[in-house]
Amino acid sequence: MVAGTGILYGVGVGPGDPQLLTLKACEIIRAADVMAYPVNGAGDSRSREIASDVIPEGVSELPVPIPMKVEREPARAAYDAAAGTISEHLHAGRNVAYLCVGDPLFYGSFMYLAARLGRDHEIEVVPGVTSLSACTARTHVSLAGRNDVLCVVPATLDRDALKTALAGADAVAIVKVGRHFEKVRDVLRALGLADRATILEGATGERERVIALEDAPEKDAPYFSTILVRRSELL
Amino acid sequence: MVAGTGILYGVGVGPGDPQLLTLKACEIIRAADVMAYPVNGAGDSRSREIASDVIPEGVSELPVPIPMKVEREPARAAYDAAAGTISEHLHAGRNVAYLCVGDPLFYGSFMYLAARLGRDHEIEVVPGVTSLSACTARTHVSLAGRNDVLCVVPATLDRDALKTALAGADAVAIVKVGRHFEKVRDVLRALGLADRATILEGATGERERVIALEDAPEKDAPYFSTILVRRSELL
Repeated sequence: MVAGTGILYGVGVGPGDPQLLTLKACEIIRAADVMAYPVNGAGDSRSREIASDVIPEGVSELPVPIPMKVEREPARAAYDAAAGTISEHLHAGRNVAYLCVGDPLFYGSFMYLAARLGRDHEIEVVPGVTSLSACTARTHVSLAGRNDVLCVVPATLDRDALKTALAGADAVAIVKVGRHFEKVRDVLRALGLADRATILEGATGERERVIALEDAPEKDAPYFSTILVRRSELL
Repeated sequence: MVAGTGILYGVGVGPGDPQLLTLKACEIIRAADVMAYPVNGAGDSRSREIASDVIPEGVSELPVPIPMKVEREPARAAYDAAAGTISEHLHAGRNVAYLCVGDPLFYGSFMYLAARLGRDHEIEVVPGVTSLSACTARTHVSLAGRNDVLCVVPATLDRDALKTALAGADAVAIVKVGRHFEKVRDVLRALGLADRATILEGATGERERVIALEDAPEKDAPYFSTILVRRSELL
């Protein structure tokens, strides 16, 4: 950490509803000199959209294009480039807020920036409400309580790894479902868990959908959906 | 749901820092007719304390004493009694906010009230920042990312169940450590994971401590501490 330079804030903006920003996130966003956020190939940024009411007009903005590919090299290069630009701002004494959907460090990308910039700069993380909490809030049912083991499992795993991960837990949240929907449903069916599963898309956001897994349309489960499964009744 | 009656809100107030309340939590708390919250045997309420700046002066308050015992019957009786009182308020058209530390449905007690009151009353859950997100925010390191399996494991499990739960995951958060500290440390040592573990107490709160597990004092790990373990480097 170098004294006298700017601070990099990793700011969780929550799962979608702008009212689920924390007071601290609002304070940091309002005061930051530079507003940074990931953007997809089409130039859209979910985190900027969620925080848009709080972002001061005319503030300096730094969109960070992140390639969403299986290969890691393009993403590495993108984080290297973003870290370089952010570092220049910090050395010039400017505070930078990097906006993250949900929580910055729960399956988020902020760790890649923190790893590149943490040695030379002060970093502060503002935790946010995760998509997982948003999902359980919409179903009104705890995913886990008391002595339950809860596993969070990325749908990107292969079938065998998915089966192993699902086998031991009392409750499971499968994240990053997207194009892995059919594989996940097959595995859940094989384990006899499909009729206990709920799929949620964009929970608390404007385009929210909550449906029983077996009622879900075949080919329309977007990247940000989550599947919740409980092995047994909780109460 | 009965039309014309009050609404029961399960409101997550976050992990400890009052600035980590969401805008929505503040709005619901400020407008509620009755402020309900769990209290321990000494009459203290962590959730009320976290939200105290936002609670309107003179609002009707309903402390809910929850016995923290291994036996479930005393707790069941306490939730029955609380549900009865809350139901009277709701039938009289009064909105009730039930304040929960962290997120209402992440290892929280709100599900017991929701299960008792959900059939006859409208319920809305306001998700909050979990203690888990608070912990990773303080270590600056993602617990899980990319294709990692993350397991949340209550320290209340016996040694064998703990070992099984810890065996498969890339990353583990052990919650409710408290008086189970020595058992958990023994299991982590047996698995060769103790030197990769961090213990956090009251993250983001006023009495926060973050220490490597092997540096932790023997008999001073309170109920609300969490142990984070990663099996391998994430980046």
